[in-house]
Amino acid sequence: MMVVPLGNINPVKPVNGKDGNVATRTSISTQIAIIGGGPAGLLLSHLLRRSGIENVVLELRDREYTIERVRAGVLEQDAVNLLTDAGLGDRLHHEGQRHDGIYLQYNGSRHHVSFRELVGRSVWVYGQQEVVRDLIDAHDEAGTPARYSVSDIELDNVADGPATVRFTQDGEEFELTADFVAGADGAHGVCRPSIPAAEKTTYQREYPFGWLGILAHVQPSTDELIYALHERGFAMHSMRSDTVSRLYLQVDPHDDITNWSDDRIWDELDLRLGTMGWTLERGEIFDKSITPMRSFVSDPMRFGNLFLVGDSAHIVPPTGAKGLNLAIADASYLHDGMVAWYRNGDASGLDEYSPRSVKRVWQIQHFSAWMTRMLHRFEDSTDAENPENPDYDYQVQLGQLSQLCESPRGMSHLAEIYTGLPFLSHPH
Amino acid sequence: MMVVPLGNINPVKPVNGKDGNVATRTSISTQIAIIGGGPAGLLLSHLLRRSGIENVVLELRDREYTIERVRAGVLEQDAVNLLTDAGLGDRLHHEGQRHDGIYLQYNGSRHHVSFRELVGRSVWVYGQQEVVRDLIDAHDEAGTPARYSVSDIELDNVADGPATVRFTQDGEEFELTADFVAGADGAHGVCRPSIPAAEKTTYQREYPFGWLGILAHVQPSTDELIYALHERGFAMHSMRSDTVSRLYLQVDPHDDITNWSDDRIWDELDLRLGTMGWTLERGEIFDKSITPMRSFVSDPMRFGNLFLVGDSAHIVPPTGAKGLNLAIADASYLHDGMVAWYRNGDASGLDEYSPRSVKRVWQIQHFSAWMTRMLHRFEDSTDAENPENPDYDYQVQLGQLSQLCESPRGMSHLAEIYTGLPFLSHPH
Repeated sequence: MMVVPLGNINPVKPVNGKDGNVATRTSISTQIAIIGGGPAGLLLSHLLRRSGIENVVLELRDREYTIERVRAGVLEQDAVNLLTDAGLGDRLHHEGQRHDGIYLQYNGSRHHVSFRELVGRSVWVYGQQEVVRDLIDAHDEAGTPARYSVSDIELDNVADGPATVRFTQDGEEFELTADFVAGADGAHGVCRPSIPAAEKTTYQREYPFGWLGILAHVQPSTDELIYALHERGFAMHSMRSDTVSRLYLQVDPHDDITNWSDDRIWDELDLRLGTMGWTLERGEIFDKSITPMRSFVSDPMRFGNLFLVGDSAHIVPPTGAKGLNLAIADASYLHDGMVAWYRNGDASGLDEYSPRSVKRVWQIQHFSAWMTRMLHRFEDSTDAENPENPDYDYQVQLGQLSQLCESPRGMSHLAEIYTGLPFLSHPH
Repeated sequence: MMVVPLGNINPVKPVNGKDGNVATRTSISTQIAIIGGGPAGLLLSHLLRRSGIENVVLELRDREYTIERVRAGVLEQDAVNLLTDAGLGDRLHHEGQRHDGIYLQYNGSRHHVSFRELVGRSVWVYGQQEVVRDLIDAHDEAGTPARYSVSDIELDNVADGPATVRFTQDGEEFELTADFVAGADGAHGVCRPSIPAAEKTTYQREYPFGWLGILAHVQPSTDELIYALHERGFAMHSMRSDTVSRLYLQVDPHDDITNWSDDRIWDELDLRLGTMGWTLERGEIFDKSITPMRSFVSDPMRFGNLFLVGDSAHIVPPTGAKGLNLAIADASYLHDGMVAWYRNGDASGLDEYSPRSVKRVWQIQHFSAWMTRMLHRFEDSTDAENPENPDYDYQVQLGQLSQLCESPRGMSHLAEIYTGLPFLSHPH
């Protein structure tokens, strides 16, 4: 791997503004420029600051938007440990719910997978927006808030030498010089496209369905998450708190949410989640949307001095609850590499960042695809040569679930990955 | 489930012969008519005889053919226990090889899965034709050989009442009356078609590849089976004895074996099985063929007094080495049910035969599909919307294998199923 040069600060110079006039940009410099103020970027910034590494976070959206954005809600054991160690555990441990297992349901019968008994680990139900809020509070307290509502972000010179990030904020143009850039700006950000096509391979898969997700003001009807395979499709009962439930239905990804009245949603959830003697409580739905499901990986996750972190490099279907956790692992790995570099001039952690992260990403891509394949109906998976036999896959899924739920070994493998592959300590 | 009536022997009566003339059939009767003299039928016959239940085995082929037919070669722990308990273990334990694990290989590196350490169980490498030979020897010794080279097998009256099986042997026409019929006549036999279409559901899946298999006179280059995923496709190193190796290559199922010279086969095996410092020894290839791969299930496995056993009801791709073992489990389950019926008039074992067997079949369909999917290249699995990304599945498979080989929990789940789900004792 290439050796990472420490940055020389570029001289300030006039540049051409958008209107063609010569404008003067305000020049600033830092050690790490972090593009994206979601959980990946804010966490990396927080970890770096605590390790004495200067950084600036740039976010296109305004602060309120980043807080309100509804996303994932399950944290792995090691992610919670990392957040706790980083001083971010107060509210998490007070308001978050430790879950010691999940339920798997098929053919109308529900089976408990006890993570704690099987692997001695747990997960925490704590919304991504809560993690973001905790990070923003910590940054505010330290006096190092992200720069919000920036626009026209452009990366330059990331292949080698100190990188340059140009952006506009409140009408003012800036040129930020940094030793490294962390691209934490999601699947549609500017960072991944800054890597030349010849320098990366992208892998992608679309699923023939999406998730209709709702948030409702109602006490969850379950103590732990329910993953259900029903003949009519996947359904899931999750939660955000004692008074807010989160539920999902497998639907056509091109379906329109306006086709789904609240009653229709609850009726369908009743059907797919129903078991004898159990009642799904209904409540006011205050958020509903349909999200397509896909898998995506861009490899490598480094180009010169640019490191991709989280969704900018990889997307998983949400079935395994892994998107946020992968982003946290990335931030942890990159922080480790930066610390080794700045403290000891040891580039190995930075050189290992992409291989380590990509390896974890493919392992989790498989887990997410495995959970997805096990729990969804694949109606168009009919054998082309035998269109009259559309149910082969479904029967195989039922066989898989029945064996898994009878097998402590199988369930412990699921529990091992669901509660989180370990965040390895620095390999050198 | 319907109650099984014990048979009244039908009176002998003249029937119309093939040429339209009235012919006299020789009438015989037995308790169980077993159609098919492969391992499933011969084993069932052997077990029934030892339990004092009279039976007749009918086989279309001649005796030499059934002995020489090359098929599977790996026996599960409980299959070996059952054969041993049934007095069939002498040669198996002398000439068969106990294997305490397998190797999984990907990206050119080989990883050991130690069944004995993980689950305390093993498998035995012992060719199906050896099992058949042992069964034939045992039948000869007992003076109850199968009837070979029969033709024109016709089933009648299987829905209820005593069943009738008409067949021809050495020019003589027979009418066999039996309480029950065991359909052990394979995927293309007459038994499954005797179940009306409205009374069964069939499920099928074709794989887009086949296995080119060879037998060669050469000492195996490995102590245990090697399952290898290579960029060019699956390869496997198995064996039959200390002097006979069995090797497989994933190929196009429509390829012609004449396209594969011995040198080409060895070269391709070298490529796909190759690892640093390891040499694949070559020898004289004395058998080579290409077999397509498919999955098939017919449910239920019972219609009236007809019970399907083994391949007549289900086919699995060979990757999990499960076809023969499923047949042995079926024979064991059916024997248990017959014994309970004849000894105690207890029909529950017969009533449970199909649900028990079908449940096991779907669990093993999944395992076989899982092994197949993990270890083969699916070139036509390209995302239709993203044809430029054909390797997503391959990368996911590599991620799966890397996680599995790092995870004692994952490997123990594989070991649990590979060495065999337990043969449950009679559930009542």
